Amino acid sequence: MKAVGLVTEYNPFHNGHIYHIQQAKKITGADVVVVVMSGNFVQRGEPALFDKWTRAKAALENGVDLVVELPTFFAVQPSHLFAEGAVKLLSALGVHDMVFGSEHADIDFLELANQAPSVEQGRGVQDKNQTFASAYAAELEARTGFKLTDPNDILAFSYAKAVIKLGVEMKLHPIQRVAAGYHDQTVVTGQKIASASSIRLALHKGKLEKIQDVVPAATLQALDDGTHTINFEERFWPLLKYRLMTDTVGQLGQVYQMAEGLEHRLTAIALGEPGPKSYQSFIKSIKSKRYTFARMQRTLFYTLLNVKVDQMQAAMKDPYLRILGFTDDGQKYLNEIKKTVSLPLISKVDQNLAKANLRLDYKAGKLWQMLANHSEQQDVTRKPIYIKNNEPRVSREMIPGD
Amino acid sequence: MKAVGLVTEYNPFHNGHIYHIQQAKKITGADVVVVVMSGNFVQRGEPALFDKWTRAKAALENGVDLVVELPTFFAVQPSHLFAEGAVKLLSALGVHDMVFGSEHADIDFLELANQAPSVEQGRGVQDKNQTFASAYAAELEARTGFKLTDPNDILAFSYAKAVIKLGVEMKLHPIQRVAAGYHDQTVVTGQKIASASSIRLALHKGKLEKIQDVVPAATLQALDDGTHTINFEERFWPLLKYRLMTDTVGQLGQVYQMAEGLEHRLTAIALGEPGPKSYQSFIKSIKSKRYTFARMQRTLFYTLLNVKVDQMQAAMKDPYLRILGFTDDGQKYLNEIKKTVSLPLISKVDQNLAKANLRLDYKAGKLWQMLANHSEQQDVTRKPIYIKNNEPRVSREMIPGD
Repeated sequence: MKAVGLVTEYNPFHNGHIYHIQQAKKITGADVVVVVMSGNFVQRGEPALFDKWTRAKAALENGVDLVVELPTFFAVQPSHLFAEGAVKLLSALGVHDMVFGSEHADIDFLELANQAPSVEQGRGVQDKNQTFASAYAAELEARTGFKLTDPNDILAFSYAKAVIKLGVEMKLHPIQRVAAGYHDQTVVTGQKIASASSIRLALHKGKLEKIQDVVPAATLQALDDGTHTINFEERFWPLLKYRLMTDTVGQLGQVYQMAEGLEHRLTAIALGEPGPKSYQSFIKSIKSKRYTFARMQRTLFYTLLNVKVDQMQAAMKDPYLRILGFTDDGQKYLNEIKKTVSLPLISKVDQNLAKANLRLDYKAGKLWQMLANHSEQQDVTRKPIYIKNNEPRVSREMIPGD
Repeated sequence: MKAVGLVTEYNPFHNGHIYHIQQAKKITGADVVVVVMSGNFVQRGEPALFDKWTRAKAALENGVDLVVELPTFFAVQPSHLFAEGAVKLLSALGVHDMVFGSEHADIDFLELANQAPSVEQGRGVQDKNQTFASAYAAELEARTGFKLTDPNDILAFSYAKAVIKLGVEMKLHPIQRVAAGYHDQTVVTGQKIASASSIRLALHKGKLEKIQDVVPAATLQALDDGTHTINFEERFWPLLKYRLMTDTVGQLGQVYQMAEGLEHRLTAIALGEPGPKSYQSFIKSIKSKRYTFARMQRTLFYTLLNVKVDQMQAAMKDPYLRILGFTDDGQKYLNEIKKTVSLPLISKVDQNLAKANLRLDYKAGKLWQMLANHSEQQDVTRKPIYIKNNEPRVSREMIPGD
C-alpha cells in the first residue's frame, strides 16, 4: 500500500484539513493517509482546543487512515525541531511522500534548503534586537533571493532541511495555501474554509454560529460536548504564577529553553506588586525583541510542566510511534509495515511507560486535563480509536472558497 | 518594664485568648504582654483563617502590646521545634516569664522535662505501628508516672525541654485549661469561651451566628471583610496535585520531612485513576499509623511550598524578630530592649530580605494570598501595625464559662 504523510495539529479540525487530505491522495495516488499530529499541546506552547483523542477521531472520520502522536518533545518546539521530529516519525512509518500547504508552492524547497546557510551562519549575523528567525531569513535571502517569511513556507523549508539532515527518502509536495492565510483572524460568512486561528478566535469570542460552515460535524459535536480549553489562560496563569512563586531561580534556570537569565525576569515580574493580572498581560510584559511570542509561550509551557534541559535531551533521543487511531485501511497498512518499522510502535500506555519514555506526554496529558477541567484520562488504559472505513462525511470534493 | 511572653496562633483570635492575656498579666505582674505568633500558616500545616496582620491587630486591640512573627520554619513544625523556636524568640526579646494553658497546671514541667527520656531513647522504643509521640509518651510515663497525652500539656512540656536545651532564664507559668478543651468541636450556646477548633468548624459550616458570643469585635469585623481561608482546601488541592504531577519523585524526595519513600506514595495516589477528589480524601488515603494527621499536613505544606531539607536547615540557623505590631507600651518596651536584643529586629521587609532570610515567610505569604484569593501583599512594603494604648474592649475580666 502506498502512503502519503501529513504533519498536523488539527486545532481544531476544519474543512481546510479535509481539502488537504483529499489533495494529498489525489497528488500522490496514495492508498492511505498517514498523519503525524501534535498531542495535547501544540507548537505555540498552548494546550490544544480539544484533546488528542477528539482531534484524532475527527480526522479518522474525514479521510485520514492512521493517526500517530507527535510526542510533546517534538511538538512543542521551534519549527526546525518540530519538522525534524515529524519527518523522523513519518519516515519510520514507511512514508516517502509528504503533502503540505505553502504560500509558495512553486518553490523546490529541497533545493532551497541545500543552498541555505547553516544555523551557525544564521547566529553569526543575528544582532541583539532581532529574533534568530529574522536574522536567518535575511541571510537566506542574501544567498538565494528567496524571502522566507510566511509561516507555511517556513515549515516547508524546515521539512526540507530535516529530510536532508536525516538522509531519508522523502518527496515533498507543497500545495498552494489558499483562501485563508494562517494569520487571517476572520471567518468570512458564506465561505467553507477558514484558518484555524480565525476559528479559535471566533470560539474565544463565543461566536459559535460563525464556525458552523467551516468545520465538519465531528468538531461541532466536540464543541457540544463542552470539554475544551477555549479559556485555558484562566487556569494556566494561577498555576504558572504558583510555580514561579515557589521554585528558586536556580531551579527555574534549568528549565528547557530558559536562556540568558530569563528566569530572573520571569520571577521578578510575576511576583512584583501588584503583579500581572492575567497570562496575557504577563506574557506581554516579558516579551523582548530577541524572542517571538511563540518561543516565550513554549518556555512558559516547559516551566509549567517543570521539564529540565537534561530530561528533554534524553527524551528527544528516544522517540516512538504512539498510535492514536486507525481505520480498516490504516490497520492493514500497520500490519504491512510492522516488521520493518524502525521505531517502537506503542498502542497502549501502562504505568511503566508513563513513568519512563512517555513521561512527558503523560504529564502533558495530565496538565491538559487540569487546564480543560476534563475528567477523562489521556494515556494510561486508553486504546487507539478504531473507525470503520467510510467515505468522508463531506461528500463532494472541498473547493476552497466555495 | 517587665514583660510576660505568650506563644500563640490566634486562629482565630477569641475570648479565651483575652482571658489568657489577662491572666498572664495578673499572675506575673508584667507591664507588657509580648506575643510570638505563627504567621500565615499554623503548626498543623494549614493556612491561618486570617492573615497575620489581621490576627496581630485583633490581639493588639485586646491587651497585647507587642506581636512578633514566629517564622514559618519554626511555626510549621512538630511541637519540640515549634517550642524551641518560640522560646528562642521570647528570650531574645528579654522575656523571662511565659504563661500558657495546660490540662495539668499543677505539674512542674521543668522538673518533668529534667526526668524525661531523650529523643534517641524515645526512638529506641518506637515500633512500626506507632507514632514517635506515643512511643515517647509511653517511655516518659514509665519513667515518671506522668501521662503526656493532652495537647496543651505536650506544648508545656516542649517549652520546658526548650528552656533546658537553650539554657535560658525563663519561668514557666502553666494556667489551667478551662471550659473548652482543645479538641472540643462544639461552640456551646450561652458560653463566652469556645475552642479555636470549634470556632473554625462553625465557620466552615457557615454558622456565623454560633461564634458571635465567643470572639471579640475585631474577629467579627475580619469575617465581615470576607478575606479568609475557611475553604482553603478547594484551592490547596489543585495546586498540590499540580505539584505532585509535575515534579519528579527525585525532586519531591528532597522536600523537608519527606521520609521513608513517602514521595512515591504521594505521587502514585495523587495521580492514580480516578484519583482523590479532594484534599480530605487524599490525606485520608495517605495517612499511616506511623504519622499523625498534622505531620502529614506539614509535609504536604512543605511540598506545596517546595521547601527542601537544605533550605530549611539553613533558615532555622538564622532566626530573626519580625515585628508585626505594637501599642505605645509595646513601642516603649522595644526602645528599652533594642540595644540588648540578641537577634535581628526586622520592622520592614524589602525585596532583598524577601529573597534572602525571609524567603520562606515571603513565599508562605504569597501562597496564603493564593489560597485566600487575597489581593493584599503580606510582606514587602508592609509596616508594623500601631495601636494606641487602650483598655481591652471587653471591659470586665473574662470569666471562663461565664
